[in-house]
Amino acid sequence: MTKIYNRVALIGLGLIASSMAWGIKRGGLAAEVTGYARSAETRETAREIGLCDQVFDSAAEAVKDADLVVLCVPVGVMGQVAAEIAPDLKAGATVSDVGSVKRQVIADVAPHLPDNVHFVPAHPLAGTEHSGPTSGFAELFDNRWSLIVPPADADRVAVDKVISFWEGLGSNVEEMDPDHHDLVLAVTSHTPHLIAYTMVGVADDLRRVSESEVIKYSASGFRDFTRIAASDPTMWRDVFLNNKDATLEILGRFTEELFALQRAIRRGDGDHLHDYFTRTRSIRRGIIEAGQDTDAPDFGRGKAT
Amino acid sequence: MTKIYNRVALIGLGLIASSMAWGIKRGGLAAEVTGYARSAETRETAREIGLCDQVFDSAAEAVKDADLVVLCVPVGVMGQVAAEIAPDLKAGATVSDVGSVKRQVIADVAPHLPDNVHFVPAHPLAGTEHSGPTSGFAELFDNRWSLIVPPADADRVAVDKVISFWEGLGSNVEEMDPDHHDLVLAVTSHTPHLIAYTMVGVADDLRRVSESEVIKYSASGFRDFTRIAASDPTMWRDVFLNNKDATLEILGRFTEELFALQRAIRRGDGDHLHDYFTRTRSIRRGIIEAGQDTDAPDFGRGKAT
Repeated sequence: MTKIYNRVALIGLGLIASSMAWGIKRGGLAAEVTGYARSAETRETAREIGLCDQVFDSAAEAVKDADLVVLCVPVGVMGQVAAEIAPDLKAGATVSDVGSVKRQVIADVAPHLPDNVHFVPAHPLAGTEHSGPTSGFAELFDNRWSLIVPPADADRVAVDKVISFWEGLGSNVEEMDPDHHDLVLAVTSHTPHLIAYTMVGVADDLRRVSESEVIKYSASGFRDFTRIAASDPTMWRDVFLNNKDATLEILGRFTEELFALQRAIRRGDGDHLHDYFTRTRSIRRGIIEAGQDTDAPDFGRGKAT
Repeated sequence: MTKIYNRVALIGLGLIASSMAWGIKRGGLAAEVTGYARSAETRETAREIGLCDQVFDSAAEAVKDADLVVLCVPVGVMGQVAAEIAPDLKAGATVSDVGSVKRQVIADVAPHLPDNVHFVPAHPLAGTEHSGPTSGFAELFDNRWSLIVPPADADRVAVDKVISFWEGLGSNVEEMDPDHHDLVLAVTSHTPHLIAYTMVGVADDLRRVSESEVIKYSASGFRDFTRIAASDPTMWRDVFLNNKDATLEILGRFTEELFALQRAIRRGDGDHLHDYFTRTRSIRRGIIEAGQDTDAPDFGRGKAT
């Protein structure tokens, strides 16, 4: 692999940033990686596990002389962090981010950045239900998609370097405009997460079925929901607050379909149910053929121990 | 393992029955296993892969001389199959089933059975998204729960043999009454499946996000839903039609919570969202501690190829 940047600064050291740090090392994509996290405990952990070449106690120090600065913080604080680092950015540097929402992040971040830096927003579609600086691993982005959402007037050289960077981390890359990005993510990620959180909350809340029953009997379907409903609460709160329009639109479509199925159950309309359930099988096949999931039964879960 | 029955007959040869056949062989739980499936193609496949000692062309032949007859057909045809086999059941035999709904199945099956056979309904909480006679494997029930739902006046010896049989297949066993069973399953299985089917259907239906986008970007959460939404449509149609009351009750609770979260998104109430998302994390930990799922990130999915 060729070095793409001299110094990369990661602001925020959670699952995505820590996976990037290991991935940059694996690919030799930068001469040096610096890091900063707001929490002293996270910084300490990052230092202990050797996550970056240097972990600084302020964002300002971390971004100094960096050629690429990646904001890896919850969507709700992107603007604030951009304001904090703006005075210390190197002329000609590129600022990027990994936020799950793009329109609002662009609106929050862009106004703070000086004219002599490039802004190239990005979003790697990868993650696990784990969070924090110890949860990262270099392979997280392998064969996953990363979406690059550059402004219309973006510097082409800066955009192409960000693309090469994500390809170097193992990703497939596609460019997209912010509104379409937010709609696609509302369908493939945000609404599914909200629904999973809701279902797990209902099960937890139901006094007539004990929590131990919910846990013991979870292998009958429920446990698949609990994985994504175990994701970082702050990150997801910010996603919903900042992708309000698209999420509410898809939720509306979801409840419409759910009510139609509910009505079919109430009326005993087996054909409606059977037709619906048949149609949904083919999408799964598409996902497996596209290499985005395993065909092994139960996701190839290890045997329960 | 000790032999528990001399001859076991499996009526219906899908995922559950084929896993039972291999599990019976693994555990030496019966001297002989016979099988029957309505479809000639399924019977042919079963014979080719040596699924049972004998596969018969009629249910009547398969149940003849059987000490245990297990109905492994969709919930909606249990009554019809019971009527079909009733004249050929051996005196003193036990009839069981593996249906995901118990109250309605008991109501459908019991009236057809002669007085000289025992009826011990059961439900192994195990499965994968695959179906058919080639999808079974002996380990399916290992460390999973099987619920036994005997009538109040059931013969204790017959019940205990069914319990030993499921333990021999690797299961943990618990007894439960039919109404509680149907409620617990509505929470842990039926409603989650309906919601997953709905979400996958919405994604499929949305013209502004192409199917190829849904597939490419599914790793961001959506793909977890597609697994259970790929399950057998006939089985699931029958589950919802036959567990109508409990499913509609839990769906009502689900939409109530979903609307509260939707309202929080619309009003920008981040605290409501954050509190809800924090609470749901602990259930996941409980499931992992109970050995009902893996803690490996992404269910330990193999690397995409």
